[in-house]
Amino acid sequence: MRNVAILGVGMTHFGRLEDDDIIDILSSASIRAIDDAGIDSKEIQAIYVANMGAGIMNHQTAIASALADNIALLPAAADTIENGPASGASAIKNGVLAVASGYFDFVLVVGGEKMRGVSGWRATDFVATLTHPYAEYIYGVTLPGMAGMFANLYMEKYGYTQRHLAMVAIKNHRNGMLNPYAHVQMDITMEGILDSPHSVVNNSPVATPLNLFDCCPVTDGGAAVILCPEERVREFGKPIVRVAGFGQATDTHTLAERDDPTDLKAVTLACKQAYERAGITPQDISFAELHDAFTILEIAEAEHSGLFEKGEYKKALEAGEVEITGRLPINPSGGLKSRGHPVGATGVAQVVEATLQLRGEGGLRQIRNAEIGLTVNFGGFGNNVVALVLRRVS
Amino acid sequence: MRNVAILGVGMTHFGRLEDDDIIDILSSASIRAIDDAGIDSKEIQAIYVANMGAGIMNHQTAIASALADNIALLPAAADTIENGPASGASAIKNGVLAVASGYFDFVLVVGGEKMRGVSGWRATDFVATLTHPYAEYIYGVTLPGMAGMFANLYMEKYGYTQRHLAMVAIKNHRNGMLNPYAHVQMDITMEGILDSPHSVVNNSPVATPLNLFDCCPVTDGGAAVILCPEERVREFGKPIVRVAGFGQATDTHTLAERDDPTDLKAVTLACKQAYERAGITPQDISFAELHDAFTILEIAEAEHSGLFEKGEYKKALEAGEVEITGRLPINPSGGLKSRGHPVGATGVAQVVEATLQLRGEGGLRQIRNAEIGLTVNFGGFGNNVVALVLRRVS
Repeated sequence: MRNVAILGVGMTHFGRLEDDDIIDILSSASIRAIDDAGIDSKEIQAIYVANMGAGIMNHQTAIASALADNIALLPAAADTIENGPASGASAIKNGVLAVASGYFDFVLVVGGEKMRGVSGWRATDFVATLTHPYAEYIYGVTLPGMAGMFANLYMEKYGYTQRHLAMVAIKNHRNGMLNPYAHVQMDITMEGILDSPHSVVNNSPVATPLNLFDCCPVTDGGAAVILCPEERVREFGKPIVRVAGFGQATDTHTLAERDDPTDLKAVTLACKQAYERAGITPQDISFAELHDAFTILEIAEAEHSGLFEKGEYKKALEAGEVEITGRLPINPSGGLKSRGHPVGATGVAQVVEATLQLRGEGGLRQIRNAEIGLTVNFGGFGNNVVALVLRRVS
Repeated sequence: MRNVAILGVGMTHFGRLEDDDIIDILSSASIRAIDDAGIDSKEIQAIYVANMGAGIMNHQTAIASALADNIALLPAAADTIENGPASGASAIKNGVLAVASGYFDFVLVVGGEKMRGVSGWRATDFVATLTHPYAEYIYGVTLPGMAGMFANLYMEKYGYTQRHLAMVAIKNHRNGMLNPYAHVQMDITMEGILDSPHSVVNNSPVATPLNLFDCCPVTDGGAAVILCPEERVREFGKPIVRVAGFGQATDTHTLAERDDPTDLKAVTLACKQAYERAGITPQDISFAELHDAFTILEIAEAEHSGLFEKGEYKKALEAGEVEITGRLPINPSGGLKSRGHPVGATGVAQVVEATLQLRGEGGLRQIRNAEIGLTVNFGGFGNNVVALVLRRVS
């Protein structure tokens, strides 16, 4: 198998993209990645589109084919990859396999979602289509609901409070204000979160103990990368960012069937696979982009990925260790919490951020000594998790 | 890159599967393929699910994760692949890349669709979500409508009549009657098609010149294969069926933008790629499973794949050359016309049939001297086509 590297990255602004349809969003991100790679688009032989909801929310299918035509990539091969909110990283994994196999040299992976064209409850209902249809969905279980139940258990077991959740939100909003692509550009304070009526919706929490500022927004957006064999990157005068390892693991569909619902086994296993393939340990990681669709998930993923011991992330939050300026920055992009969560785009956007950081192109949010980045893309409620390790190769 | 072979195959009956939901359908096909392979299911490291419409028709997403849990394949990696009606062959291609890369040894690819739970017009509307949203869909263009327009042009250009279309339908129904998995088990006659009121719907054609018997049915069903490195097949005492080549090509989204709307460039190119990778020419093919969602498509694909010259398929039909007993059997399974077309399953079902034929397990429809099989899975209206060449390796 060949080493696979990232030749180019691109993103749309994440937010309300009212004038763009799903194909526009995918096209914009793709063109930016192609431009960044400095490649003639005729070189692109295969396309992977990550998307979860075009059928349900946009009443459109076969969007990979539509994209290929719209940005003149015909006759490249084109498929759509869906793995719930982890569609993005799954698509990158498949792009990596396509290049690693030797069959394809230049592959475009682009994730995108157009979610804000549907009303708020429909967006929540759409995401809930990943829950178990008979054991969860029909009882009205939503992702915020699952996250609330999970948060109660996790906080009790490991001694977390709402103050710790708020620290995650404050950090990620602060980081997001340094990220021109981020959706929510808003500084928030501990008082604002814990004491303000604006932290609840219609005078009630989103899902106890999670309030408004514990939840990511509903976002439109796209993100793209160009993959190629590592030995080809130098031709383009680019720094080499290798996809050094990937991991993917599934777990029970329902939370209720897990022996310990606070144990995110798929996160642990996906990260372990990624570390092994990359030949590293968690101690080698310089920074991570974690899937903080809810603040509790940043905490739980940081502790299941091996970056921190269980229950120890709170100390890192309190000590500022996971700030951009800290020892191990977590979500320098602002994470899903601030950058936003166009579901199909998120896993790709995480890799875009990691690539920028590893290249030293992180702008105002650039971290120091970025050598190895981890991304965790959390599908379902932890029932299909994809982890990627990216490494700068000098 | 490693050679990849098919270790096991399995299918559900195609038809009305009223008691099964989409996960049941995928599960049944998968279990049959695992049983046929004779493999311990714990060996399966990755799953690709081919599906187009679970979001729209079944209001369910992330079905690959649900399947992994339902048939106890945790923690295998699991993704869904969507490429319109060519989702099945796209998923097989991605399974092949996963094995060829060296990262995965045993991969389950399963396609399935649950379509009959929605009313007839909704099934047609669902498939129409692959058309161009502004140039086609909003004007009420459907797939039968596109096929009708295409048929008029193709028949005029190459001298085909409705009698030739009927010969395709009659052959494929006859073959389907020998296939226990086929949906429509009904002998039809030239008189019945050309003269009977039953050949039209509500006293009118489906889409001139296509009548009822020119169109595939709306079908529920699933089909699955187990892929592995070729060198591992002998451990299981199985005949070796190699995925010798694949090809995939995209074309313009709309028919109207093609210089010659009768020229299915993506079929020609996908087949050419597959032949080149397999190191063969069209003259080496023993039989083919073509994507006859409409009778005209069997004719057009046979002539764009290089198996026949343009306009020459009618002679083969008239001479019986493409019957099961003929020189070059086309659609021995009964094709989409008789076996049915659960869209996500079709490309996988074509490979199941090709594998059975190459193993000599075709039962009453077994063809003679099956050495190399071609499958053509036609996505969109020819805007994303995947071709596969399967070869028996002695």
